[in-house]
Amino acid sequence: MATPADRIAALRGQLALTGLQACLAPTADPHLSEYLPAHWAVREWLSGFDGSAGSLLVTADFAGLWTDSRYWAQAQSQLQGSGITLMRAGAADVPDMLDWAIGHLHQGDRLAVDGRVLDRAAAGRWRAGLDAAGVSLVLDRDPIGAVWADRPALPSAAVFEHLPPHACRSRADNLAAVRHAMQAHGADHHLLSSLDDIAWLLNLRGADVDYNPVFLAHALLDAHQVRLYVAPGKVPADLAARLAADGIGLRDYTALADDLAALALNATLLVDPVRVTAGTLSHAPQVHVIEAINPSQLLKSVKNAAEADNIRQAMAQDGAALCEFFAWFESAQSAGDRVTEIDVDTRLSAARARRPGFVSLSFSTIAGFNANGAMPHYRATESSHAEIQGDGLLLIDSGGQYLGGTTDITRVVPVGTPSAAQRADYTAVLQAHIALARAQFPVDTASSVLDAVARMPLWRRGLDYGHGTGHGVGYFLNVHEGPQSISVRGHMRAHQGMQAGMLTSNEPGLYRDGKWGIRIENLVLAVPAAQTAFGSFLGFETVTMCPIDTRCVVRELLSADEINWLDGYHRQVRERLLPLVDGAARDWLLARTEPL
Amino acid sequence: MATPADRIAALRGQLALTGLQACLAPTADPHLSEYLPAHWAVREWLSGFDGSAGSLLVTADFAGLWTDSRYWAQAQSQLQGSGITLMRAGAADVPDMLDWAIGHLHQGDRLAVDGRVLDRAAAGRWRAGLDAAGVSLVLDRDPIGAVWADRPALPSAAVFEHLPPHACRSRADNLAAVRHAMQAHGADHHLLSSLDDIAWLLNLRGADVDYNPVFLAHALLDAHQVRLYVAPGKVPADLAARLAADGIGLRDYTALADDLAALALNATLLVDPVRVTAGTLSHAPQVHVIEAINPSQLLKSVKNAAEADNIRQAMAQDGAALCEFFAWFESAQSAGDRVTEIDVDTRLSAARARRPGFVSLSFSTIAGFNANGAMPHYRATESSHAEIQGDGLLLIDSGGQYLGGTTDITRVVPVGTPSAAQRADYTAVLQAHIALARAQFPVDTASSVLDAVARMPLWRRGLDYGHGTGHGVGYFLNVHEGPQSISVRGHMRAHQGMQAGMLTSNEPGLYRDGKWGIRIENLVLAVPAAQTAFGSFLGFETVTMCPIDTRCVVRELLSADEINWLDGYHRQVRERLLPLVDGAARDWLLARTEPL
Repeated sequence: MATPADRIAALRGQLALTGLQACLAPTADPHLSEYLPAHWAVREWLSGFDGSAGSLLVTADFAGLWTDSRYWAQAQSQLQGSGITLMRAGAADVPDMLDWAIGHLHQGDRLAVDGRVLDRAAAGRWRAGLDAAGVSLVLDRDPIGAVWADRPALPSAAVFEHLPPHACRSRADNLAAVRHAMQAHGADHHLLSSLDDIAWLLNLRGADVDYNPVFLAHALLDAHQVRLYVAPGKVPADLAARLAADGIGLRDYTALADDLAALALNATLLVDPVRVTAGTLSHAPQVHVIEAINPSQLLKSVKNAAEADNIRQAMAQDGAALCEFFAWFESAQSAGDRVTEIDVDTRLSAARARRPGFVSLSFSTIAGFNANGAMPHYRATESSHAEIQGDGLLLIDSGGQYLGGTTDITRVVPVGTPSAAQRADYTAVLQAHIALARAQFPVDTASSVLDAVARMPLWRRGLDYGHGTGHGVGYFLNVHEGPQSISVRGHMRAHQGMQAGMLTSNEPGLYRDGKWGIRIENLVLAVPAAQTAFGSFLGFETVTMCPIDTRCVVRELLSADEINWLDGYHRQVRERLLPLVDGAARDWLLARTEPL
Repeated sequence: MATPADRIAALRGQLALTGLQACLAPTADPHLSEYLPAHWAVREWLSGFDGSAGSLLVTADFAGLWTDSRYWAQAQSQLQGSGITLMRAGAADVPDMLDWAIGHLHQGDRLAVDGRVLDRAAAGRWRAGLDAAGVSLVLDRDPIGAVWADRPALPSAAVFEHLPPHACRSRADNLAAVRHAMQAHGADHHLLSSLDDIAWLLNLRGADVDYNPVFLAHALLDAHQVRLYVAPGKVPADLAARLAADGIGLRDYTALADDLAALALNATLLVDPVRVTAGTLSHAPQVHVIEAINPSQLLKSVKNAAEADNIRQAMAQDGAALCEFFAWFESAQSAGDRVTEIDVDTRLSAARARRPGFVSLSFSTIAGFNANGAMPHYRATESSHAEIQGDGLLLIDSGGQYLGGTTDITRVVPVGTPSAAQRADYTAVLQAHIALARAQFPVDTASSVLDAVARMPLWRRGLDYGHGTGHGVGYFLNVHEGPQSISVRGHMRAHQGMQAGMLTSNEPGLYRDGKWGIRIENLVLAVPAAQTAFGSFLGFETVTMCPIDTRCVVRELLSADEINWLDGYHRQVRERLLPLVDGAARDWLLARTEPL
């Protein structure tokens, strides 16, 4: 079972043995997390492809991996010799996975997916699609688990409490707010499987998942109590006692199934259909399910004043770490020292780690020089990375988890002498960034439409980029959270309107395949800006504090308003960071915050 | 039965007689048209409220009319003495109609809606909502019809053919394109009830509905034939023969029910769930329904080159009519003649009627002076209208149906001496208009997000308006058509992306309640603008040709780019319209197209 080919052969044997004609392995776990524990990295184990997105479909005579354009090159290379066909999801001639299954399976066939990791909404779509073709969707089998002998155990890091002054809300208030929403939905119970919702709700944090300070758990709420399902031994006794005092009882992680089965026949259970799996819900067939976005998604997206203050402090510490890093980087460049993309990650992570309140990185650092920067999700590895030398642009996208906030920042700096084309591109992206940073708009404006405001400076030059412009950011929680999404390819759901207190990234970019990439990213806090006869208006307070390199700016392309914004930002960065740095970092800060 | 109160009393008697506890009267007909024939003006007959939108719900002890904020004042006044409660739809404390019904009806109750006028999608929502409350939705009764003794007959205007050179597509091509889409959806049949889809598909036009050159019909397509359901005598014999030659057979308007019932058990029927009613589909319970947007919606939204040429000519004729009107208006103003809002409509309609190719107005003229202009859907009536005198702003929103295109234009002109505040507002709206007119964006950009580009010049001043910025416009067809909708309150469905050839309005506005209203509207054609490494980009060609009054413009507020756009537009207007006007109209055109 050393190779993907061996594993797929074993899986085919298992399928034949159990009367299944196909098996689907999505990239998911029972909590529908962005980052999976190794135990749930089923698709990766089976296929050898380790990108963050993709689904594998295996039949007796076909195995196909569907993944999006970010990963086509990587998958092409990692799938070699596996016998797995790369299905370029999103390409015009490639059917989506469900359509492929409908087209190739036969009446009476049975397709298995581990229901424990398939979200309720997706399960509904698959069932409807397969039903029409006479194919059964089987959710209660795990043929892959049956052949995965050395499957890693679940993580077992300790759970800890997020405490004041970093925690700025009480569990009681959070629970009251969620219970109020349950009542409004007419639900007497509410099930949470999403780890950031649970961590936020209970002021708890953990370390079970890379980059996100969360722990594996489910939570079942009613009007009086919370049952928190977590593996034994992870919650220290004193913390368990404090939780009990707040009406939160600990139950074994695996006890959820029985408790769901024991719910009353007329129980009404509120779930978010994209944040709870079909397998989890299969234990409660007797209840009336009410579908809605998790109330906690909306509540935690809006940061309160105390959180905002802590975020500003975390941003200053993060910016100070970046000053130290960039001061080192420039001196190393001047000295002609050899510096690689890996060194960037190492040095920058170390500078962050020295800062008070730092806990971990918030995602794996992207440091890409020239052509590598053109891959928005690039990651330098020991076996494949570039040395930073010659002329061009270095893109660094990085962030940290601090007790008082989560950071996410992208800067692009010149190396040697950037070309005129690179400077023009950089300036256009900066204009897009400033357009969004300066935007004013009514409360509740659909977040998606704001993306057009950011893109217009690029669009009018025939430029564009393939990712969204802004994602929500948690408070010492996941670096990607909803519900807002500043993306022209997004949706306009009722709950995606912008509200005061939302923390969102502002990260337009531009990528020249094989040449260079640019992205300028700050986090912005939505703040009240005006109250007029036409309603309440919001603006953005840029909370990320770090110079935006001006050496690549083509001044003549900027309007007076844009120059004013940039100079004003740099005045503020200098003022906030100066008390936090000294020596070379201080000199660097002063130089890089000079007015344009 | 002379008053709404009498009619509602009679309806309540009928409900009691037939064991129904509630009855809903939406504003709709079997074709889900924007403008209803009098036969289907059920809600208006019952309530006395004659606004274009609203639904009436009647129970034994309650009658409520739900209508949106545009109509609150009018409904308040028209409902007096009827016993009907005005339910301000959209207000924070007013439940939507379905929620109200769920909250007030009892288990076992039966609520009737005439299924013939309830779209399939709405029927699904109502059924699901009422089911959960144990209330039955009854679609096959018409208690209102049962008490409406003198109900008007259906219209019977003749059907005529839209011929070349004005018709720029062949029926055969249209049918082939729709059949191709049917095949892609796996549908062997396709039912159309929407009148503009049918008119477009078959190059036919009619006069059954105000302002829209359509005729009452359904159409049932399969791979070989089209059955067109239309009342006998409406299609002239020679036209019927030409249709037959193209595989289109005429059937009585009422024969659809039997033909649907006769479809094979395994027939697959493509329908647009918001453009076919539940009642119509109730005749085909045996078929497999495939739901998708009508293919003709997408096909007709994209105007071909020949249509675009005809549209440019129609716009020039329309603009020439406006020159004549405005020349008269200004001279009447100078002479101190009494001019009312009604005179504006009369004179402008007459000027349009003199133009070649003119068929009818495309909607009822909105001419509102000062406070009246602040009501976006104002209509002057004989009994209530203003004289245009003193100082202020006159808003005129009007349009025509021409054989070669449909027009829709709004202009605001100064009367006497407008105030500084009026001029500032006017300039802000002009900037919003120019921002959209100059926008460049990728092919397939969600139309909704473009609205933020138009609104930003207003939003940044704390200004806004409550309607969308752009609707699709038909080709000698409905002045409102989809699928594109430039509206921040819209959706981002896959089929709402902008395509080259789409004709859309650009109509930002600003309304000061009780004071004045401003809206500047042109129609814009999406045209290829650039092809780069980042894809294909579109821009807008403004096709409406009529001066935008510059006397209210505060020049200092405009950027050089904005002034250039305005001057460039006026150069083009002058060049295109000069050959079409003479005398006072010519003088007016020359004066009003001077550079800023």
